[in-house]
Amino acid sequence: MSEERWDRLWTGVELATMTDAGLGIVPDGAIAAAGGRIAWVGREEALPPGARGKAAEVIPCGGAWMTPGLIDCHTHIVFGGDRSNDFRHLLQGRSYAEIARAGGGIMSTVRATRRASSEELTRRAAARGRELADWGVTTIEVKSGYGLDVETELRILEVAASLREHLRADISPTLLAAHSVPTEYAGRRGDYLRLVVEEILPAALQQGHAMSIDVFCEDIAFTPAESRLVLEAGISAGLDGRVHADQLSDLGGGALAAAVGARSADHLEYLSREGVEAMAAAGVSAVLLPGAAYTLGAERKPPVDALRRAGVAMAVATDANPGSSPITCVGMILNLACIQFGLTPEEALLGFTSAAAQVLGMHDDRGTLEPGKRADLALWDVDDLAELCYRVGASPLKSLVKDGVPAD
Amino acid sequence: MSEERWDRLWTGVELATMTDAGLGIVPDGAIAAAGGRIAWVGREEALPPGARGKAAEVIPCGGAWMTPGLIDCHTHIVFGGDRSNDFRHLLQGRSYAEIARAGGGIMSTVRATRRASSEELTRRAAARGRELADWGVTTIEVKSGYGLDVETELRILEVAASLREHLRADISPTLLAAHSVPTEYAGRRGDYLRLVVEEILPAALQQGHAMSIDVFCEDIAFTPAESRLVLEAGISAGLDGRVHADQLSDLGGGALAAAVGARSADHLEYLSREGVEAMAAAGVSAVLLPGAAYTLGAERKPPVDALRRAGVAMAVATDANPGSSPITCVGMILNLACIQFGLTPEEALLGFTSAAAQVLGMHDDRGTLEPGKRADLALWDVDDLAELCYRVGASPLKSLVKDGVPAD
Repeated sequence: MSEERWDRLWTGVELATMTDAGLGIVPDGAIAAAGGRIAWVGREEALPPGARGKAAEVIPCGGAWMTPGLIDCHTHIVFGGDRSNDFRHLLQGRSYAEIARAGGGIMSTVRATRRASSEELTRRAAARGRELADWGVTTIEVKSGYGLDVETELRILEVAASLREHLRADISPTLLAAHSVPTEYAGRRGDYLRLVVEEILPAALQQGHAMSIDVFCEDIAFTPAESRLVLEAGISAGLDGRVHADQLSDLGGGALAAAVGARSADHLEYLSREGVEAMAAAGVSAVLLPGAAYTLGAERKPPVDALRRAGVAMAVATDANPGSSPITCVGMILNLACIQFGLTPEEALLGFTSAAAQVLGMHDDRGTLEPGKRADLALWDVDDLAELCYRVGASPLKSLVKDGVPAD
Repeated sequence: MSEERWDRLWTGVELATMTDAGLGIVPDGAIAAAGGRIAWVGREEALPPGARGKAAEVIPCGGAWMTPGLIDCHTHIVFGGDRSNDFRHLLQGRSYAEIARAGGGIMSTVRATRRASSEELTRRAAARGRELADWGVTTIEVKSGYGLDVETELRILEVAASLREHLRADISPTLLAAHSVPTEYAGRRGDYLRLVVEEILPAALQQGHAMSIDVFCEDIAFTPAESRLVLEAGISAGLDGRVHADQLSDLGGGALAAAVGARSADHLEYLSREGVEAMAAAGVSAVLLPGAAYTLGAERKPPVDALRRAGVAMAVATDANPGSSPITCVGMILNLACIQFGLTPEEALLGFTSAAAQVLGMHDDRGTLEPGKRADLALWDVDDLAELCYRVGASPLKSLVKDGVPAD
């Protein structure tokens, strides 16, 4: 044994390490952290002699379940205003596309976001982030896309990055300047695309916050050719690629994600068989967003069986946003993933941990309980981890550990 | 003006009095409580001269929205065990009826409930009740029905009644001994019905906790004729009648509720046009339970348009139970009521206040903000009350007042 010291040792935990399809369960487990990383993990009876003495603090957990801190790999939590009125229109039977065309939807949020101060955007996004953290989330991807001009897109990325100072969570910012064509560019799509590729993207690269580039490939947003242009520009500049793909119609978004080497294609209600195969061949992950499908009353669900058979990794995320998924209750999203998309509880939980880490390019760093990984740990007050998916009430989170340090 | 003193006066509130279909909104309002009742309500500028001096305490609310405390008029929160395994079976495509026939479903909960001590039942039901209270609920109907023998049914009613001591909420217990035919009476349905009518009901009446009698009228439970027998026995003994009606098939449960003079028919996914008309003519309320329809993946939704046109009052409730609606997040239920059943936000909120009070026979006592009503008040941290239905995250409850007294 090395002379290494441990900062903390948790004992009496049921571990869901997320290292296999059955959640990688280690009963009667123990886990140690040193320097913010997992130093040891396994059955408590297999702890090396003198292990307890190596730990500055030993925390007995009374048989509680532990998972990696959850990873919400698709959110839009930085925005101004709200969309109660869109909700009323949605209930009156108008479609998301109709609401968008009538000046509601994304554009109403763009106007409110441009008007809002960075302080207000930060305060409200941090409140949303805290709701996620209350459900065990320690890593949040945050997209821009409600600015649609150089100044506001960069400001959203700045606000997103700054959320680390307000939350016990890491933030992975994503540039989504190609979220919608802003009103002032109506009839001049090409000009807006040039703005995205020639001005917003370079400015974001110089700013240095964005880790990924994303595009909304859809009839009401950008064509596959336009999407490809933006994705290739971002990916060739070193960003990870993401695609809002095949949500409302089959435009071949999944295949596009495969063609450009994106990390994920997200939504996928209309993903074709060819799309599934292309994603599988290219190693593109699927990000399933049941909150949006539910809120919009989607007539189709993603081809989960086909994705499963093809071996495509499936992540699950909140898609937290003001219009199509105004949901920060992770328990409801896990429940929807099972009830409406037909995932097993195990798939839903893997989708919020190891599969989500893969989507963010962080699989070497987090998403499983393995030595060397970041010690982001969630302890749960449940008898069976399926309860996280099965009942929706108060968060059953018992304690949250970030970088080896428990919350007060 | 009388010399009456007020215990408390809330000023600067946006009042949703629930006295008309538009939520009975009074902007820039004030409301006073004395002796646990509402003493005055109206626009703040209309406060009588010297009003502030009459109040022992004045609470400025900074423009927050206030509604009556919410009323959850259909729950089953007293039970033992859990049903994670049923959830797995449900996801594998088995129906609620199949799970029940295979010994899961209600009967597995009955076994666990009979085994559980009253202390354990109380502790766990109180935890569920607190989750409801966190969403502004101050009145909870609680059904028996997981005992199905004299001793356990009475014990559940006792536990339900005792929840008042553990929660800042009033409890309205309901006898639901006719929830299912217990295993030990298989093939002897008539004997179980006699037990319900001749032993359990009289014992419950003597015990004095039950305010209502309910029956599960369904293929997998009791026929309309059997249901009628139980309902008539309870109603003629002075209890209010409730019916689990037309949830999984059209057995004429809504019409049965009308024929026996029940207060409500609940679920109603398969309610016929004749059922709607019978309910309207008899003044029977509909109780909509979107959590169960959602969890079971119901193929039909209740005939909301027909109920609306016929003028049938529509309440909404959680149906919180371990199998078909393991949901204590009121925000999710309000959201489901809008998204999946097509209610407006206004209808959903009326369904959890004034319409729910009607179902429990408490409309003279609570459910609206009017002088003389109980001062159960919920203050909300939202800009628009529709937000209660539109977004699902942490509860936006700001403060809860029971019988005129704010929580600490």
